[in-house]
Amino acid sequence: MGCFISWGEVLLRLSASATERLANARNLDVIYGGSEANVACALAQWSIPSRHVTVLPDHAIGTAALQSLQRFGVQTDFIQRQAGRMGIYFLEHGVSLRSPQVIYDRFHSAFAEMSQPFEWEKILADASWLHWSGITPAVSQAAADATRTALHAARKLNITISADINYRRVLWQYGKKPTDIMPELISLSDYLVGGVDDFNNCLGIALPNSFEEVCPTVTQTYPNVKGIGNTIRQTHSASHQELQGLWWDSRSVTTSRNYSIDPIVDRIGSGDAFMAGLVYGLWHQHTPAQIIEFATAAAALKHTHHGDALHATVAEVAGLATNLNTGKLLR
Amino acid sequence: MGCFISWGEVLLRLSASATERLANARNLDVIYGGSEANVACALAQWSIPSRHVTVLPDHAIGTAALQSLQRFGVQTDFIQRQAGRMGIYFLEHGVSLRSPQVIYDRFHSAFAEMSQPFEWEKILADASWLHWSGITPAVSQAAADATRTALHAARKLNITISADINYRRVLWQYGKKPTDIMPELISLSDYLVGGVDDFNNCLGIALPNSFEEVCPTVTQTYPNVKGIGNTIRQTHSASHQELQGLWWDSRSVTTSRNYSIDPIVDRIGSGDAFMAGLVYGLWHQHTPAQIIEFATAAAALKHTHHGDALHATVAEVAGLATNLNTGKLLR
Amino acid sequence: MGCFISWGEVLLRLSASATERLANARNLDVIYGGSEANVACALAQWSIPSRHVTVLPDHAIGTAALQSLQRFGVQTDFIQRQAGRMGIYFLEHGVSLRSPQVIYDRFHSAFAEMSQPFEWEKILADASWLHWSGITPAVSQAAADATRTALHAARKLNITISADINYRRVLWQYGKKPTDIMPELISLSDYLVGGVDDFNNCLGIALPNSFEEVCPTVTQTYPNVKGIGNTIRQTHSASHQELQGLWWDSRSVTTSRNYSIDPIVDRIGSGDAFMAGLVYGLWHQHTPAQIIEFATAAAALKHTHHGDALHATVAEVAGLATNLNTGKLLR
Amino acid sequence: MGCFISWGEVLLRLSASATERLANARNLDVIYGGSEANVACALAQWSIPSRHVTVLPDHAIGTAALQSLQRFGVQTDFIQRQAGRMGIYFLEHGVSLRSPQVIYDRFHSAFAEMSQPFEWEKILADASWLHWSGITPAVSQAAADATRTALHAARKLNITISADINYRRVLWQYGKKPTDIMPELISLSDYLVGGVDDFNNCLGIALPNSFEEVCPTVTQTYPNVKGIGNTIRQTHSASHQELQGLWWDSRSVTTSRNYSIDPIVDRIGSGDAFMAGLVYGLWHQHTPAQIIEFATAAAALKHTHHGDALHATVAEVAGLATNLNTGKLLR
Amino acid sequence: MGCFISWGEVLLRLSASATERLANARNLDVIYGGSEANVACALAQWSIPSRHVTVLPDHAIGTAALQSLQRFGVQTDFIQRQAGRMGIYFLEHGVSLRSPQVIYDRFHSAFAEMSQPFEWEKILADASWLHWSGITPAVSQAAADATRTALHAARKLNITISADINYRRVLWQYGKKPTDIMPELISLSDYLVGGVDDFNNCLGIALPNSFEEVCPTVTQTYPNVKGIGNTIRQTHSASHQELQGLWWDSRSVTTSRNYSIDPIVDRIGSGDAFMAGLVYGLWHQHTPAQIIEFATAAAALKHTHHGDALHATVAEVAGLATNLNTGKLLR
Amino acid sequence: MGCFISWGEVLLRLSASATERLANARNLDVIYGGSEANVACALAQWSIPSRHVTVLPDHAIGTAALQSLQRFGVQTDFIQRQAGRMGIYFLEHGVSLRSPQVIYDRFHSAFAEMSQPFEWEKILADASWLHWSGITPAVSQAAADATRTALHAARKLNITISADINYRRVLWQYGKKPTDIMPELISLSDYLVGGVDDFNNCLGIALPNSFEEVCPTVTQTYPNVKGIGNTIRQTHSASHQELQGLWWDSRSVTTSRNYSIDPIVDRIGSGDAFMAGLVYGLWHQHTPAQIIEFATAAAALKHTHHGDALHATVAEVAGLATNLNTGKLLR
Repeated sequence: MGCFISWGEVLLRLSASATERLANARNLDVIYGGSEANVACALAQWSIPSRHVTVLPDHAIGTAALQSLQRFGVQTDFIQRQAGRMGIYFLEHGVSLRSPQVIYDRFHSAFAEMSQPFEWEKILADASWLHWSGITPAVSQAAADATRTALHAARKLNITISADINYRRVLWQYGKKPTDIMPELISLSDYLVGGVDDFNNCLGIALPNSFEEVCPTVTQTYPNVKGIGNTIRQTHSASHQELQGLWWDSRSVTTSRNYSIDPIVDRIGSGDAFMAGLVYGLWHQHTPAQIIEFATAAAALKHTHHGDALHATVAEVAGLATNLNTGKLLR
Repeated sequence: MGCFISWGEVLLRLSASATERLANARNLDVIYGGSEANVACALAQWSIPSRHVTVLPDHAIGTAALQSLQRFGVQTDFIQRQAGRMGIYFLEHGVSLRSPQVIYDRFHSAFAEMSQPFEWEKILADASWLHWSGITPAVSQAAADATRTALHAARKLNITISADINYRRVLWQYGKKPTDIMPELISLSDYLVGGVDDFNNCLGIALPNSFEEVCPTVTQTYPNVKGIGNTIRQTHSASHQELQGLWWDSRSVTTSRNYSIDPIVDRIGSGDAFMAGLVYGLWHQHTPAQIIEFATAAAALKHTHHGDALHATVAEVAGLATNLNTGKLLR
Repeated sequence: MGCFISWGEVLLRLSASATERLANARNLDVIYGGSEANVACALAQWSIPSRHVTVLPDHAIGTAALQSLQRFGVQTDFIQRQAGRMGIYFLEHGVSLRSPQVIYDRFHSAFAEMSQPFEWEKILADASWLHWSGITPAVSQAAADATRTALHAARKLNITISADINYRRVLWQYGKKPTDIMPELISLSDYLVGGVDDFNNCLGIALPNSFEEVCPTVTQTYPNVKGIGNTIRQTHSASHQELQGLWWDSRSVTTSRNYSIDPIVDRIGSGDAFMAGLVYGLWHQHTPAQIIEFATAAAALKHTHHGDALHATVAEVAGLATNLNTGKLLR
Repeated sequence: MGCFISWGEVLLRLSASATERLANARNLDVIYGGSEANVACALAQWSIPSRHVTVLPDHAIGTAALQSLQRFGVQTDFIQRQAGRMGIYFLEHGVSLRSPQVIYDRFHSAFAEMSQPFEWEKILADASWLHWSGITPAVSQAAADATRTALHAARKLNITISADINYRRVLWQYGKKPTDIMPELISLSDYLVGGVDDFNNCLGIALPNSFEEVCPTVTQTYPNVKGIGNTIRQTHSASHQELQGLWWDSRSVTTSRNYSIDPIVDRIGSGDAFMAGLVYGLWHQHTPAQIIEFATAAAALKHTHHGDALHATVAEVAGLATNLNTGKLLR
Repeated sequence: MGCFISWGEVLLRLSASATERLANARNLDVIYGGSEANVACALAQWSIPSRHVTVLPDHAIGTAALQSLQRFGVQTDFIQRQAGRMGIYFLEHGVSLRSPQVIYDRFHSAFAEMSQPFEWEKILADASWLHWSGITPAVSQAAADATRTALHAARKLNITISADINYRRVLWQYGKKPTDIMPELISLSDYLVGGVDDFNNCLGIALPNSFEEVCPTVTQTYPNVKGIGNTIRQTHSASHQELQGLWWDSRSVTTSRNYSIDPIVDRIGSGDAFMAGLVYGLWHQHTPAQIIEFATAAAALKHTHHGDALHATVAEVAGLATNLNTGKLLR
Repeated sequence: MGCFISWGEVLLRLSASATERLANARNLDVIYGGSEANVACALAQWSIPSRHVTVLPDHAIGTAALQSLQRFGVQTDFIQRQAGRMGIYFLEHGVSLRSPQVIYDRFHSAFAEMSQPFEWEKILADASWLHWSGITPAVSQAAADATRTALHAARKLNITISADINYRRVLWQYGKKPTDIMPELISLSDYLVGGVDDFNNCLGIALPNSFEEVCPTVTQTYPNVKGIGNTIRQTHSASHQELQGLWWDSRSVTTSRNYSIDPIVDRIGSGDAFMAGLVYGLWHQHTPAQIIEFATAAAALKHTHHGDALHATVAEVAGLATNLNTGKLLR
């Protein structure tokens, strides 16, 4: 097979240590990540050749972001550099009764204001998969346009397309509504991750109330869509949560075991680890039960270490998915 | 209204990181705090003009303490500086089965050996509230005397007086017993925080065994006292505890919800956050139910971050008090 | 006398540790500072009542900036909060042959896009001094307008006005040139800090080549101007530099001793410490020789510790200015 | 009584911070420890004169290991230094669903390749106790030989001998099987720590399935053996585990209370703390119930702080063993 | 052109902070580097497609080493993983009168005990340059053999070969002397870095005493050799040193300016940065003066930041080489 | 020979990082040291059996101090523990033009208020050397009395006595003057370290102005005194100083080379390292030139690493003393 390509913005994340409030922090941990790039970082670790496409500032912070992707083995040869700023978000992790908080400072980024066209035919030449998320068309008209161009190019080349709907109310400030743009992009995609709320906000059609009922409607409306994944999260506190995965394969919904995570180290990127797990299972043509268990284990494992992108081998994720020695000292 | 004034010693707190024993620490975190100053720090964040009155050494460590109060917006213009030492306490946080420990090194401090009189009329000129705690008269005769002078001055100016009884057996070493001094000071106060043990140790009268029964006795004996707050703590381990607040408003006891905190980051100052929450509710003439819920939420939230003083906005405390999205990622 | 008021943007500074390149940093030190606020922070430590006026975002990072000013004792009661972002700059300190570098990310800040008018009459009511810098009118039309309004109001109230010309080529991107705006603002000011380049870029008139010759031309053209300060820096490497101060008091130029700083810890804010030193000397009506020696010592001392704002007592600066025991262990 | 002597390798442990994966760590915490030395470190804190015997490299890392033992008060006068490397292990702590992992890099160490004989008669001259573990004879032929020599010398001098069986499958790579060597060494010992698996792997005889049944078989086969201890661990996750101790005193099995540890900070060395607790109780001729409760409390407490060796006073362990104020703030 | 390939071992470097002695360190900084890989890391940053070939352990520490190369953009697709250990070195940086020290722990590494052959024809298929150093044949017979195979394969494909002689007395312990092996490898190479001592130890022929005289002898003896570089270091202290570069282009020796570095942050890898600078200049067919100035500037710049590999852009190195604004604040 | 015994207070030192002002520090580095104990720590590293005698508090901070001595191999079996506080000093290191500063907080310590007598005959039983300093009799009457008792006991046992005069103006606050106490103690001593000022302040006799002239007067007045050492320090800045040692052996003054230290990491304890160097040379009966060169090299080396006590082997000190490869990378 060819390579996996992800497309979307990379942000600089600045987080206070777990016990400190953001307003009181004297130093901040640096992570570079983005919903789509995080998927590529996981897959590159799992021996799926991966490439990320984005726009980065042409200064040292942009270089740092570039190098953080390369570190995982993600190819960066189609990343464009231009003058401008890096999108930023500040993160306070949350502990127990104190909720985690994100402060976004991502407007006017070099990505949002991208000024050079991407040569998608060239970029996609050796690709078999293209991944995008609903965050990108929410950022700016230029980002939405580039996404549409990329998807049409991929469709023409018979490249599999996946999308994480990822609806974010605080974005979509450049004049378009999700329903103006998302339906076309979704109609071009093969696999989706999303929940009832995501679909309600992005499709603009009346939908039933449960994932089980929404999925058939979506796959009927958008015949390219062959599978939909989702996670259900129970939030006992900022430190203790449970996670369960669901996978609609156009016939039925398969559910994973329930994963109880206590304590949580860093929940950012757990949805992206789930997405990566789905791609991994689909790429290797696993069964629905294998796909959803691996993806949910990946998402659960992401909660246990620092950073946006999952750091774990296939063996580690599979070990958790099959419940081998969880928590036992390995030596 | 005028401003809130707190009166009492500020200590240098030196704590080992959570996973390290104090005897093994190679560096110590620095926090400046005091039972009374912590209340002012919380209230200043909540837009109640606050001023702290104390004595600090005239060297860099004293300056650091001063600046740590200013940082929260607490006014420090009546703080006296004099030669001498800073009171210190060493803190080992405790985790799970390992209990938190405090080693006090606060004798002979510049505060305990204060040598210049305070001009209380001037200090209280634009005040509407004066707050003291049972720690101050326990420290030295000079501190006890200054407290008595301050309280009489405040009473004369019709300033509301609150007190955290805060009985500490390891203090009271200068020759006086709590019962020699506390009854008069309590008799001058409007609002108290204390439990059955505090009252037993400080009032010198036979008291019943429950908060519900003690409160009427106290308010009958000390007719100035209009309200008494207290918290009940269930200690499952150093990392997991539950907290519930009680508020006697001279008619009945109102209880808060029960807050389960797991894990605890730093429990020091939770009583002071509770006190601040009570003052905030009384200042804004909230209902008893609102008062005790806000105060207990403030106390619970204090457990979730590093430091003696609560770092939280009114919205954050109120959000927890009304159980909104606790633990959910806010973005 | 009344208070000192500074007006200008506060930035979040994110710096890598001295030995690490910015592109390789995994955590960044947090400092909040601004050319004008740094002056207030120094003066507040030196017992000159100081107040900073600015616009800050209404989120936790804005609160952190606010609290960092309060920490020094700067009053913040006229600071406006509004939705928006915090201006940021990234700093790599530089060592030896590796030059320090700044990456600005300050456009579109809440300050630059300030949307509420300031009530300058009320703000200046108890002021005797107003300080601004050439950075502010370079940021946006709104900032330039607010500066002009403030200066006219101050002039009407006979408040002393000081300015740090501080010409920065990378700013001035909103459509105006320095010469469109700076001459009027300079004409309203009493004391300036600037070098030949600053005046050349901001005044739009032909000027001689040396500070000694430029100063009379400036004071003749702008009769309100009563004094001009400047520093001469010799750069041997990023770690070793020499500094000398010059002060034109409308009659002659007085020079300070030469200060050799080796190694340099953090040179950011040394110009602001110089400015603060000048204000301090003028406020206390010192002689020209005292003024320039104290100001240059303050600037030199700023190089020796971390942070934008000078942390030093009057005694420490004066000790260095009078060459007492420099480098000797004080105990 | 004389002193306690432990014999075995000391390793350099390099661990990532709890929230970081080993492959992503930019710095590693340094601890020096070894199964047998950890016992001496605990006992030295408990006023039992202790001495550790080993071989260390003759460079700075060897010196650091030596000094880490001395720090606890362990005497090091019979430690040999020789050219060679320090055995190392890398540790990832694990959190929640992420299991702790150890990567060993201990082959070819100066200890394994020890080249000078030890003068056991001199070393044991003032000893009353010798402690070894099953790790040592598993490391190399030289280490196995030295252990046998030491045990025979001790037996001759009527010195009490204890052993932690500690079977590790990844060791035993020098050509011998446990059953070639361990039975003789066990036959020379008075007290053992081990579970059913340990005995199965090391004794080479058919054994029943439960600790209660195995113990009589072992003590009948090896008449020198007077007592056997063991711990039962329930692993809920990497962060939450329960521990219970068992003690066979040749007549019956006594069990401790069950200790629930949540969260776990560092579980390495908990078995060694258990061993130390047993030695402490036997040394002071406590009752079986006291012995096993103290030993299990020591093991449980070890989980709550960083490092291989238990840092705790007798009073702290005994306080936990008798369930006094667990988790309560001590001041 | 094709890509640059480096071949050699990657080590885990563990260093104490600059102010701490190694024997006293409680944590160690982690860097992965190797003399040859460091060259590839620099060149990859300078847009020369680079690939490193080595053997790494198949555990998390090996993965970390792999990812540290990828981070710079170095391709790692021909790196072999096998069971075994990572070579390690401990570094104490040194300050002022305290010399830097290295403790090697690199024997028995997976690289030294490499067990699978490399397919050099495939590896070199798209290469134009192969780089090796004298460290590799000094490590083990297997490493020496693989180097010889690689060089013959490269020679056959007309690939340019460079070598850093890098004689290390503490290596060469597997039974061969440098003069047994190095002459053949040098005879296959086009460009060398080495000083008089290196040649004396490795060539086994009588040589004159100065670089200027040795070079013609070497190029006459080994006609493939077209250029030889070297650096002269003056050591005033651990913190202050001067560096000058020499370049023999088969006709004459060109010298660089003298670079004074004070203070030095981390001198490890400066020779590799010099090597990378030479390759860069030769790759782009620069003049001898340009080549040696760029290479020496790269070496000098390496001293100013943490880590084995140079982190610097072409513009930064060239800026230092042409003496632009050295030490000045860039904004 | 027997062992070396040092007698004096151990303090907790709390220091800010080099680039941070004390008033701004959020964490402080922890070191335990004392002028006399630092000598024992150096000598224990140099294979001279050493024992420190003092009084420490009976809490965790006292234990930490005890263990910090044990770490170096210093025996602690005669250290007394009693209720009370640990003497503390705060240290700001100083850089360049910013002078280092010490804030003492050592009054009322457990040592100063020592309440149990020491059994000096037992303590000194296996000793050949006793070391004290002028700090101890300056602390309290009890400390002065214990020192006198110890010195008389030592004299009776023919134990060599050394003293570091170490006059500190800020001490001597308990009612006695140095001239009341020091002459008798000095008269009992064999070797002294002190400069002209020390003798002037402590002996109460008119003295000449130079070390060369003072020494004969001292040795004539106090016939037990056989040698006097001193260091001359030139302070260019807090970061750059020069050091030269002088040694009067009752016949003539021998001087060491001049050691230039740039930069200085931590100058605290350099006088104690000098003292240790003198004892080492005298213990081994070296020549005056060897004695003073080794002692001064030890003092110089102390400036280059963190901590009160010198961390260095005999080989390292001797290497610097003989000027071998200073600053060169050792591998």
